[in-house]
Amino acid sequence: MQIQKARVMAGSARRLLHRNAKGHLANMLTKLRSQDVANILREMSDRDQIALFAILMREGLPLAAETLNHLEPELGTLLLQPLTSQEITEILQEMDSDDAAAFITALPEELADEVLDLMRGKQSKEVKGLLRYEEETAGRIMTPNVFALNEDVTISEAINAVQAGTDLEMVFYIYVVDDRNHLVGVVSLRQLLMVPPSTPLKKMMSTDILSVTTDTDQEEVARQVALYDLLAIPVVDRQNRLVGIITVDDVIDVIQEEATEDILHLAGVNTDDHVYTSRWQSYKKRIPWLAVNLFTLMVAAKVVAVYEGTIAALPFLAIFLPVVAGLGGNAGTQALTLTVRGLALGEISWSSGRSAVFKEALLGLGNGITIGLLAAVAGYLWIDYNWMLGLILGAAMIINLLVAGIIGSAIPLILTRLRIDPAVASSMLLTTITDAVGFFAILAMAFRFLEQ
Amino acid sequence: MQIQKARVMAGSARRLLHRNAKGHLANMLTKLRSQDVANILREMSDRDQIALFAILMREGLPLAAETLNHLEPELGTLLLQPLTSQEITEILQEMDSDDAAAFITALPEELADEVLDLMRGKQSKEVKGLLRYEEETAGRIMTPNVFALNEDVTISEAINAVQAGTDLEMVFYIYVVDDRNHLVGVVSLRQLLMVPPSTPLKKMMSTDILSVTTDTDQEEVARQVALYDLLAIPVVDRQNRLVGIITVDDVIDVIQEEATEDILHLAGVNTDDHVYTSRWQSYKKRIPWLAVNLFTLMVAAKVVAVYEGTIAALPFLAIFLPVVAGLGGNAGTQALTLTVRGLALGEISWSSGRSAVFKEALLGLGNGITIGLLAAVAGYLWIDYNWMLGLILGAAMIINLLVAGIIGSAIPLILTRLRIDPAVASSMLLTTITDAVGFFAILAMAFRFLEQ
Repeated sequence: MQIQKARVMAGSARRLLHRNAKGHLANMLTKLRSQDVANILREMSDRDQIALFAILMREGLPLAAETLNHLEPELGTLLLQPLTSQEITEILQEMDSDDAAAFITALPEELADEVLDLMRGKQSKEVKGLLRYEEETAGRIMTPNVFALNEDVTISEAINAVQAGTDLEMVFYIYVVDDRNHLVGVVSLRQLLMVPPSTPLKKMMSTDILSVTTDTDQEEVARQVALYDLLAIPVVDRQNRLVGIITVDDVIDVIQEEATEDILHLAGVNTDDHVYTSRWQSYKKRIPWLAVNLFTLMVAAKVVAVYEGTIAALPFLAIFLPVVAGLGGNAGTQALTLTVRGLALGEISWSSGRSAVFKEALLGLGNGITIGLLAAVAGYLWIDYNWMLGLILGAAMIINLLVAGIIGSAIPLILTRLRIDPAVASSMLLTTITDAVGFFAILAMAFRFLEQ
Repeated sequence: MQIQKARVMAGSARRLLHRNAKGHLANMLTKLRSQDVANILREMSDRDQIALFAILMREGLPLAAETLNHLEPELGTLLLQPLTSQEITEILQEMDSDDAAAFITALPEELADEVLDLMRGKQSKEVKGLLRYEEETAGRIMTPNVFALNEDVTISEAINAVQAGTDLEMVFYIYVVDDRNHLVGVVSLRQLLMVPPSTPLKKMMSTDILSVTTDTDQEEVARQVALYDLLAIPVVDRQNRLVGIITVDDVIDVIQEEATEDILHLAGVNTDDHVYTSRWQSYKKRIPWLAVNLFTLMVAAKVVAVYEGTIAALPFLAIFLPVVAGLGGNAGTQALTLTVRGLALGEISWSSGRSAVFKEALLGLGNGITIGLLAAVAGYLWIDYNWMLGLILGAAMIINLLVAGIIGSAIPLILTRLRIDPAVASSMLLTTITDAVGFFAILAMAFRFLEQ
């Protein structure tokens, strides 16, 4: 369903809800895919969302659980809040254990503990097992519900097993294990159709099998699945025992999540800040960053303070300070973003990075000369035809764009080398430097000019 | 293969290459997956890349073609440049037609035409067919090589057809068509195993089938595959005739490409600018943006120019101008980025967007009061304990952060409404406004203060 269509459906749902036509509404919702119901929910106000979700609950837990599953955890937990911990538990029991684990992680700690205590049976064990792994690792996002057969099983037995499997909607590969559950091979469903039924799996399986371990970072998992065009990747423990599987649909979620993380970090936003995050939460998340930013800006402003006398003598310099600093910041951001993204996609590394810095330095110089000339002319025309001050403006621009190119491309490389996520810390560091360099370049030259 | 390992392998490959041990090197490369060979290439200098690729070519076109296929088109076309158009054609003939079409698009126009003329047979027709569709649409990225069977075919015939299919590595669904090739249903491989062999497909196929048309934007294709957790989506023409298929591995590429596009656009970088782009190309792509930026910064600086007299009287104001403007720009970027990403992921829309703007306005006010107080104290301590000027600084901060929150969240919504990609135009517009407002707020109040 296209977004346009979701919007129309949300309109109908809203009208039915406000007319209190719950029967009609339930009738409409149960005919839709759960993803479409999720889209309708997203289009509604907070109050309507909760009312609609109550109707879904009455229609049966599976639909409510599936719908929830397609919502962002922030929005999902919002919908769970009016429910008792017993009701929440019942919904989560309907989900795959990896999805249930993700929701429990998003719940307030106390409620999460209650729900975990209330959970029963196989799923409770599975969820607790997953929660033992670190967040954002393969162990945390895998489903332990993996379809594996012993290497001595024959093709015809394997076909029977596939036919008997019920909650295995997404079987494309059959993983093959030995007697101690070590992952030894893989067979595709299609291969099953190609060989005589009495062949044991070990005779036809492929042993060149890619896997990740439970502690592999989810970003690395996604990179491997994307790189090798896989539909799923098996997860093993340190003894190479098969413990789970991560399917491509979950990998797509990870890729989108990691891209979002990089985009937000580059803008100095916390990853768990979100359009749905409550105002107070968002405030608490953004204010420390802004406070640090106030401090770094003050540091750069200190450069200006040193030259207060120069500004008093030539007050129009104040006009050009933000121009030089701003352009340096923006040109540096270009170099920075290209490098951060190149690193995230695995396109550049420490060694190939050095040539990237060299390229950005040259580019900064080239850009600086072009923009510097333009600025010099503009400055000359503006400040009463004083060619010397135009020249200072142009020269400051060249210096700042050169520095911006070098610093912008070098910061992410150095941070990666130091094992710091380059997206988090780069931009503020960059703009502090380009501000300070820009201010210093223009004011120091003007100071010399005044002296003579 | 992990990146670490790729780096070690690249080191070995480089040593073998420099010792001219081409036999050993070829031996090593042919044992690897083509994705790993691609990773090794990425770790090398331009010269070594070309030498290594020549060795790959000698080992046979399939390996060279597959390796090329895993490289970014920019790097790929760089490797193709030393070859004759005949050689390029031979390599591209080895690829799937959708991949060949992507490479031809990346080649210089003249060379692309030559290669298209040299292509022969079925593939030539397919590639030319794909190139008729707009870039970044489903028609352009689909593979026309889709596995479809008539609705009257029986299960046993279908199983035979799957067994006979050779270049269909990625079959998970069997699409079902009627006599005039209209898409009427879908059957999963697993379902084939579940019913009596004499059943015709139309008796067991699912008719609730998702598809896209050839002119669907690739971003929308990716959104649907991600939303409905699909492994592939069929592409139909306007008459609902099945013309191709897009598999999830290609969708992952689209998702990464679109995320990259958004990240780069937010930083004011052209999408086809890249770590591998030549310096001259990068220069040409960035300079117009920087020139426009010089102009917008000058516009904001014009506000400062109006108050030159105020600065002459209170030169330390110049110290705080970049602080107020910078914080406004950064706080606005936070709101802007959250909104752009929310729009890209389909989490917010025009209607739910209005509450997002309201939230960001409140948040801007809250942040403004907090940071404004901090700034007022800092300003009071710094500027010789003049409480009035500290107050001006704090008030200017509140005004600018409030405006930043509103403008930052509203700009992307308005641009989307006007059908302009919000990632492209937003940031420069935002910082121009926050600069101008910040300058004006502080200088206008200082001007009043001086008057009294």
